[in-house]
Formats: sequence, C-alpha cells, structure tokens
Amino acid sequence: MPQPDLLEFFDSPAATPFLIEHVQEEFTSVCPKTGHPDFAAITLRYQPRAVCVELKSLKLYYQSFRNEGIFYEAVTNRICADLSERMSPQWLQIVSDWRGRGGIRSRIIASSGHVPQEWLRG
Amino acid sequence: MPQPDLLEFFDSPAATPFLIEHVQEEFTSVCPKTGHPDFAAITLRYQPRAVCVELKSLKLYYQSFRNEGIFYEAVTNRICADLSERMSPQWLQIVSDWRGRGGIRSRIIASSGHVPQEWLRG
Amino acid sequence: MPQPDLLEFFDSPAATPFLIEHVQEEFTSVCPKTGHPDFAAITLRYQPRAVCVELKSLKLYYQSFRNEGIFYEAVTNRICADLSERMSPQWLQIVSDWRGRGGIRSRIIASSGHVPQEWLRG
Amino acid sequence: MPQPDLLEFFDSPAATPFLIEHVQEEFTSVCPKTGHPDFAAITLRYQPRAVCVELKSLKLYYQSFRNEGIFYEAVTNRICADLSERMSPQWLQIVSDWRGRGGIRSRIIASSGHVPQEWLRG
Amino acid sequence: MPQPDLLEFFDSPAATPFLIEHVQEEFTSVCPKTGHPDFAAITLRYQPRAVCVELKSLKLYYQSFRNEGIFYEAVTNRICADLSERMSPQWLQIVSDWRGRGGIRSRIIASSGHVPQEWLRG
Amino acid sequence: MPQPDLLEFFDSPAATPFLIEHVQEEFTSVCPKTGHPDFAAITLRYQPRAVCVELKSLKLYYQSFRNEGIFYEAVTNRICADLSERMSPQWLQIVSDWRGRGGIRSRIIASSGHVPQEWLRG
Amino acid sequence: MPQPDLLEFFDSPAATPFLIEHVQEEFTSVCPKTGHPDFAAITLRYQPRAVCVELKSLKLYYQSFRNEGIFYEAVTNRICADLSERMSPQWLQIVSDWRGRGGIRSRIIASSGHVPQEWLRG
Amino acid sequence: MPQPDLLEFFDSPAATPFLIEHVQEEFTSVCPKTGHPDFAAITLRYQPRAVCVELKSLKLYYQSFRNEGIFYEAVTNRICADLSERMSPQWLQIVSDWRGRGGIRSRIIASSGHVPQEWLRG
Amino acid sequence: MPQPDLLEFFDSPAATPFLIEHVQEEFTSVCPKTGHPDFAAITLRYQPRAVCVELKSLKLYYQSFRNEGIFYEAVTNRICADLSERMSPQWLQIVSDWRGRGGIRSRIIASSGHVPQEWLRG
Amino acid sequence: MPQPDLLEFFDSPAATPFLIEHVQEEFTSVCPKTGHPDFAAITLRYQPRAVCVELKSLKLYYQSFRNEGIFYEAVTNRICADLSERMSPQWLQIVSDWRGRGGIRSRIIASSGHVPQEWLRG
Repeated sequence: MPQPDLLEFFDSPAATPFLIEHVQEEFTSVCPKTGHPDFAAITLRYQPRAVCVELKSLKLYYQSFRNEGIFYEAVTNRICADLSERMSPQWLQIVSDWRGRGGIRSRIIASSGHVPQEWLRG
Repeated sequence: MPQPDLLEFFDSPAATPFLIEHVQEEFTSVCPKTGHPDFAAITLRYQPRAVCVELKSLKLYYQSFRNEGIFYEAVTNRICADLSERMSPQWLQIVSDWRGRGGIRSRIIASSGHVPQEWLRG
Repeated sequence: MPQPDLLEFFDSPAATPFLIEHVQEEFTSVCPKTGHPDFAAITLRYQPRAVCVELKSLKLYYQSFRNEGIFYEAVTNRICADLSERMSPQWLQIVSDWRGRGGIRSRIIASSGHVPQEWLRG
Repeated sequence: MPQPDLLEFFDSPAATPFLIEHVQEEFTSVCPKTGHPDFAAITLRYQPRAVCVELKSLKLYYQSFRNEGIFYEAVTNRICADLSERMSPQWLQIVSDWRGRGGIRSRIIASSGHVPQEWLRG
Repeated sequence: MPQPDLLEFFDSPAATPFLIEHVQEEFTSVCPKTGHPDFAAITLRYQPRAVCVELKSLKLYYQSFRNEGIFYEAVTNRICADLSERMSPQWLQIVSDWRGRGGIRSRIIASSGHVPQEWLRG
Repeated sequence: MPQPDLLEFFDSPAATPFLIEHVQEEFTSVCPKTGHPDFAAITLRYQPRAVCVELKSLKLYYQSFRNEGIFYEAVTNRICADLSERMSPQWLQIVSDWRGRGGIRSRIIASSGHVPQEWLRG
Repeated sequence: MPQPDLLEFFDSPAATPFLIEHVQEEFTSVCPKTGHPDFAAITLRYQPRAVCVELKSLKLYYQSFRNEGIFYEAVTNRICADLSERMSPQWLQIVSDWRGRGGIRSRIIASSGHVPQEWLRG
Repeated sequence: MPQPDLLEFFDSPAATPFLIEHVQEEFTSVCPKTGHPDFAAITLRYQPRAVCVELKSLKLYYQSFRNEGIFYEAVTNRICADLSERMSPQWLQIVSDWRGRGGIRSRIIASSGHVPQEWLRG
Repeated sequence: MPQPDLLEFFDSPAATPFLIEHVQEEFTSVCPKTGHPDFAAITLRYQPRAVCVELKSLKLYYQSFRNEGIFYEAVTNRICADLSERMSPQWLQIVSDWRGRGGIRSRIIASSGHVPQEWLRG
Repeated sequence: MPQPDLLEFFDSPAATPFLIEHVQEEFTSVCPKTGHPDFAAITLRYQPRAVCVELKSLKLYYQSFRNEGIFYEAVTNRICADLSERMSPQWLQIVSDWRGRGGIRSRIIASSGHVPQEWLRG
C-alpha cells in the first residue's frame, strides 16, 4: 500500500529559486483489473518552497506501490498529491511513462503550480 | 570539506560581454545519509563582470568535495553561491547531473542573474 | 606570439549582405599556468562590411598561437578583437571549444555587433 | 571560366508561389592563391517569379567553374548574382559548404529577396 | 515464491529441430541482503525435444519471483533448472541482464546442452 | 484457417543455384490461449530446386493466418512445412520475430536442408 | 524489353586480377501479375577476364527493363546471364534488393564462378 | 586502503558451469604521482568454482580504493589477485577503462585461467 | 595527364615491416565517354620495402588526373601500377569509391602482393 | 626534439601476463616539408615484460614532438623504437591516425613482437 509516511524532507539549502528533477526508471505496481505487474519510469520535477524530498525516502515511498493494485492515472495523481501536500512546492510535476500492455504504451502528466521560466532555459 | 579559498581568479580579458562554459564530468562527493559515494557532471556557465575563474583552481575546488557528506541540492547551491560571491558575474548557472542511486537519476539547476540572449544564439 | 599582421584581406565580392563561417578544428596553444598544450576548435562567423579574411592567412594567424602561453578566455577575445579591428565587419562571432583538462571541457563565446537574421535561417 | 550563358530557363508551370531546392554535392573550383583544387556542396533554393532554371544547364554552368581560380566568397556571390539576374526570382539563396583546407572547413551564405514563409514550414 | 508448477507445456509442433527465443524485459525479484527490488531482462533460448513452454504460463512463472528474496546467480540457475527438468530440451540457455545496483550492472549466463549450429546462422 | 492452396509457384528461371529472401513485416495471427492478436515479421529464405513461390500468392497465404488461433511455434513450423512440401527447395528457412506479449518478445527459427555457402557471402 | 545488345564493353586495363562493383539504386520493372511497378537496387560485382562493362551502356541496359513484366527472380538471373555470357568474367554476382510489395521486401542473389579471396579483404 | 577483507562470498547455486559479469562504472582512486583523482569503469567476469562474490561487499571493496594512491596497472592486477585468491574461480578477468588524463585514456586487462567457450557464445 | 614523375619518395624510416594507409577523399577525373567530371575517394594501403611515398607529391600526382578522360577501372589500375613500379612495395592495394553516375555508384579494387597479417589485426 | 629520456618506468605490478592500452588523442608535430603542424591520435598497446611506462612521463615524451619537423612514418617508428628499447616488452604496437592534409588522411601501424591472444578476446 502506498505509504507517504515514508517520505522524509530536509530544509532547502537555498532561499533563491532553483529546480530539481529525479527520474526513477524502476517503478512497478499492479494492474487492478488483471493482477499483472505494470512497469513505469516516474519523473518528478519541482521548485522547492521550503523543503526538499530526501532521495532514499523517495525510493522507499515508490517501492511501497510494488504490490498495490492501482490504475496508471491514479498512480500519477497520487504521487503528485502526496508530494505536493507534504512539500508545498512552488511548482511540481509528475510524468509517468508506462511500458506496453497489449501493445499499448502510455504517458500520464500531472502537476501543481506553474512551470518556472528557468526550467525551459536549462 | 569544500574549500572555496582554493578558487583563483584573473582579470577578464575583455570589457565587452562574453560567455564561458566549463563542464566537469568527474565530480564526486559522499551521500550524507548512506555514506556511499555520489557521482555527477557539473556544468558551470557564466558571463563575467570583471574576473574569470582560473581552470586549475576550479578543478581543485571541485576536488575538495570528494569526501564531503552533502546532498545533491546543497552541492549545487553551494557551488553557485561560492562562485557568485567571489566573481559577482552578470549571470551564472550551475547544472548538476547525478548518476543513478537506487534506480533514480537526478538533475539540479541553480542560477543567479538572467541568462544572456547571446547564449541562446551560440 | 599571436601575429595579427599575418592576416590578409581581400575586397568583399558583393555589396549585398552575406555570411561566412570558418571552422578550424586544429587549434593549439599553451596553458600559461601549467605549460601544457591546449587544443580547441575555433569557429569564426561574420558578415563582412568591405573586406573578407583570406583563408591561408587565417590559418597562419591561428598557427601563431601554437607556442603562446595564454588562457582560453584571452584566446577567444584576442581573435575576436584582432579580426574585428582589421575587418570592421557588420557582425563577428568567435566560439572556441576546448578539449578536456583535468576532466573539464570548456566553451567560450565572444562577439561584436548583432547576429544577422539571415544566419538563423540558413 | 564561369559561363552563365550555359544557363537555360523554362516558363514556371504555376502562377501561384512555390519553392525549389537543388543540391550539387560535386562542385569543384581552384584556389586562386595556392592553385590547389577546392571542393564544395552548393545548395540553390529559390521561389520563381516567371521562369525556372533547367537542371542539365545548371550542371554544365557549375562545371564551368572547374578550372577557375576563385575564392569561396566570390563563387557563392557569383552564382547568386548570375542566377538572380537571369531569373529575377522572388527569393534566391546560395549556401556553399567547403571541404577542409589546412584544417579549416567553411560555409558561405548569400541571398537576394526575403525567405518565403512557406520554406520555413516545409 | 518461485512456482515452477505454473509452467505449462504443449507438444512440439515439429519433429525436426528448431529454435525458440523468449525475451522478458520486465523481470523483478528482491535482493535477499538489502530487501530492495532488483530488475532484469531474462532471455530464454532453447531447442525443444518433445515439448515447448506455453508463453502465458512462462510469464506467470516469471511473476512468481516478484517478492522472492534471491541472488542474481540463483535466479538464473533456478530458471535454467526448472525449465530443463520439465522440458528436457536438446539445448537451453538463460541470460539475465540486471539493471545497476550501487553503480554495478550485471549479466549471468547459465545453460544446459550444447548450442545448435543453426542458432549461430540465424 | 491457413490455406496453403493459395500458394502459387512458377518455374525457376535458372538451372544454376541462386538464393531468395522475402521479409513480410505485417503478419498477424491470434493467440489460441487468450484470443488476442499477435504480430510478427516473417522472414523466408530459400534456394529453389525447380520452382519459386509467387509473391502475391505468398502474401495471400500469410493473410490466411489472420483469424487463426495458433501458437508462435506452430505458425513457424507450419509455414516451413507448407512451403517445403510444395517447393522441395534445396534449402529453406523461416524466422519469425514476434512483438511483445506480457512484456515477452520472441523469435522462432525453423529450417529444412543446409544453409548454402553463397548465402553467407552475400 | 530487356536489351542486352545495349551493353558495351572495353578491354580490361590490367592483366592482373582486380575487382569491380557497380550499385544501381534506381532500377524499376513491372510486376507481371499485377501490372504495378517494382523498384530495386541492383548490385553487380565481378572480376573481369578480358573485358569490362561500360557504365553508361550498363545504365541504358538496366533502363530497358522499365516496362517489362518480369518476376524478381527472373530479373536477377537474366542480368546475371546476359553479363556472364558477354563478358566471360572470372566471377560475377548479382544482388537485387526490392522495395516492399504488400508488406513484403525481397532480396535475390545469383552468381557465376567463385568469389575471389581479394574481395573478402577489401 | 584497499580492503579485500570487505569481500563476502556465498556458495555457488549451481554445480554446473555458468558465467557472471559485474560492471562497476563508478570506480575512483588517486594518482600516486600527482595526487589527482582517477576515474574508471571496472568489469569483472568469472566462472565460479565453488563460491560467488556478494554484490554489496564487492561495491564496498571497490569503494576502499577511493583515497588510495595507486597506478592503473596496480589497481587492475590487485583486484584480479584479491578476487582470484579468495574465490579460486575457473576463470576470472578484470578490464579497467580509465577516463582521460592529460589527453590520454587507458585500458588495462588482467586475467587468470582460460576464457570459457560459453562466454564467447552468449 | 597523369604525371607519375610528380611522385617523390623517401627512405623508409624502419627496416622492420610496418603498414601505411592514405585516404584521398577529393579525387576527380573526367569520363572519357561523356566528358562529365567523376568524383572518387582513393585509398592507398601498402607495406614499404625500401621507400615511402611523400604525401604532398602524392596529392599533386592525384591532382594530375583532374582533366584526364579516363575510365574508373583504368584510374585504379594506373595508380596501382605507377606506385608499385616506383616503390616496389611488399604489398600495395588501391580501392576507389566513385560517387554515383546515372544512379550507379562504383568501387574498384586493385592490388599487388599479399595483404600482411598485421593489417588485419590493426 | 623528441626526448626519450623523459620516459620513466616502474616495475610491473604482476608477474603474470597482462595488457595495457594508452590512447593519446592530442598529439602534434610539424611537417618537415611544409612547416605546417600535423595532428594525430597515437595508440600504444603492449604486454609488459618487467616494467610499465609511467603515464605523465609518456605525455611529456609525446609533447617533445610538438615542434619537431618529422614525417608520419618516422614518428610512428620512432615511438615504437624508443619504447621497445627501454621497456623490452613482450609485444608492443603503435597506431597513428592523422587528420587530413590536402584532403588526405593517414594511418600508420608499427609493432614489435606478436599480438597476445588475450588482446583479441578483451
């Protein structure tokens, strides 16, 4: 079962705006309809307000979806909500890219706040 | 321990604006949580105001992070601050690209000032 | 010692604006700090006003840096200044791309005048 | 000796604007300074007004530069002028890409008229 | 727990020798030392004697490793043994390619019987 | 239902040995277990003895598998047998490459006779 | 109708063995069954005995297949025979690569004599 | 200081021969001459006799070179010797690929025993 | 007219066997049949016996074919003969790769002596 | 002037055979005929007998060719001889790859002793 309580945070090391991207290429959960495993790459991008997510705790949080029966769309929005609530970032985006099922591959994008101009120039 | 005092500077050879990019692909520090080494490529881009950073001193400054326990986000903002304070550039940007940890790879971007138009045309 | 007097020019063959790019991939000079050789590709782009630089003389001028102890930033601005003074072009840009030193590779960009719209369309 | 009289033209088959590109990858002339052969790819792009250039005559015209001692810049502007005078196109552009000489490779761009919007959308 | 009883077989459709390769790119198990998930691509190649493995049952068998704590080497030899015992093939090979752990990526190869000449010509 | 009677043949145009390869990248049949469609590329290679297969009839024969519930292994051996029986070639090989099912992609190779030396030199 | 009489030959310029390859990427003929055009690349490789085929005559000979209704296999063997008879080469090989028809792409290989060792080393 | 005592081993899960490859792309040590850090990818390949090296212990053993002043050649032979002595494998090979120093990049290969035929077929 | 007298040679700097390859990518001659220019890359490979060909003289010799009407096959064998006669090498090979004419591109290979084993290992 | 006395050696760290490759991509010398600079990549491969070449001394030795007027062939054999005499290796090979001059690019290969079988397997 997804466990947002695993998430740990630390104070942002800078008062000025900056941007963070973490790409987890080994995400897996379970299809609630067929019971078969799903595989995805999960990209988290955000501009912190006061805190940053600690990387090992993020990995453990992602692992807590391993045996959860949950749709692609719900995974993406759930992660977006769990992190947004706990970090209150200036901006946050989750992009999930799912390996094919029955010949279909999928991408889901959820976000909160507006994408910073700096990100587009990087 | 990061040693900004290792940084040396020389007078900018031109009064007119110009742009500089240094990419260090062999940066390493230590994870403060697990004690395991982290590896990154660090990209420094700036438009000098009066001085430029000397390349060998930059290399030695980067090497001073070798056995420092420090988060990705702090590394990036620390380098950004150390160089900005000492050079007072028109613009400066640090992009750090970290090899994977637990299947997660990361990019952090910090900057001060606004990106010059010339950079986008290069 | 860099010898701008080696540079020769010929009358531009056209009164209408046009654009020129010369890429020298075999540039070498010497690090003033360590005495070790540096290697770069030097890209010259310009829109002539009245004269063009003759190619063989440009090659010899570049070769005159071979045993000169000089920083990357000074090489780039020096070439930019030497050519701008002697040609008074509408626009001129020098981009130097340096092979790695101590794991660091660098790019320096200097220019005079504004980039012509035609260049972006080429 | 370049022989623009070799060029032949035929009536444009359409009254509405359209665009044409011919790329000759086997152009050769001679360096007026060293006597050594030069090799280039010549790209001709134009929007006809009333006539189009016939392809075999264009090939023969290009071949007439074979033993001509002439600078890159003059070749490019000469072709641009010869074709513009005889065709009066809405727009015409010549891009010449020269193989390396002394480690230097070059590109020259000449044009007359303004690039049509349609070309940028192609 | 790995469940070889999930494996189903069907009579080989041909008495003459032929070759089969199945690549599963979505294999996951658990590290017995750290408890963290491992991810691999598993390649099965074999020449059947009398029976072939049914593909959906192979997928379910692979899925039964999902929450098993087991070393890379044991996974590879276990699959090799489970399939060899139940199919008695002329030849069988298992190649597992594991995504990185602590910066280390791995490949394990186990086989029984000799590789058929036809395979090398395919 | 696969219809080998659709296959047509014509006399080989040469008495001396030669080699033929036909690659069909748009083969589809149905999984007999799940009822879902399967997609494959089918490669036919052969050295004719007296007759060659006519290409349009080969296409129609392949199309006759469209709604057939049949395993990968059976498809491959069935095509190999249907063509071998009707053409009596010196050598014939069928390679089928199947798109993924449940994350598993597959290749099956069947053949009759020995691969000619000329094929390896082509 | 294929016109081998178009082929012209000239005396081989060397008494010692050497090798020749001509690749025609613009071959077209007509399918005798459907009337649709076929497109192929035709590769001719040979070691001359006493004469070489003249290149322009080879082009015209290839063009004489343009409106001929003829199978791939017949084209390949016909060219092989026409050239072998008229040149009596030490070795000659024709490889035809046909663009797809009904999702099927094809390669036919015909040859006379044995491939020279020198060819394999080139 | 390199600490081979960190290495842990477990019983090989199979009595039949099989092959193992571990690639560590994040190896770093220190140049004994200049004191500057060196970076390498270390590839370990072996066929176990009775025991396998545990992956996390291998990572920690590699990390123990982090601040060791040691030549490329010594690193490679030291790892080869430490593992061979403790595992007595049928065959073991170490390949180290070092990033450039002073424009020079290097590869060192050390091994004990003979490479198994199965490795070449994988 | 090809001028082998332009070729200059210098004493081989080594008594032990070694190998040399020079690739000229800017060769041009004229088709004796149509009068149109031909373009080729000429590769010279040899093992010297007593002398080596000087590079600038080789360039000038190649340039002497510029306005010569001569077949591909004759160019290749002529260069092979001119160099073999004057250098008496242990082994020499000429490979000419011609850009397309009438949609046909060609390669001609001529040689004298046997290819050294060292070449294949380089 | 080439200074083999710059070369330093250290005792081989292993009594068993192993292999070493150093690739210097920034080699430059001067053409003795034209006075223009030449640029090459120099690859050194060897199996040591008793000593190894120290990397920084190798770099300085290579740099001593910087202003030397010397042919490609002599550079290659000179390096091969200087290192062979001082190291008495089991096997040593020098491959030099030169950037183009007058449109010609070159490779020279010199060696002493026989290539070890292990090198071909690495």
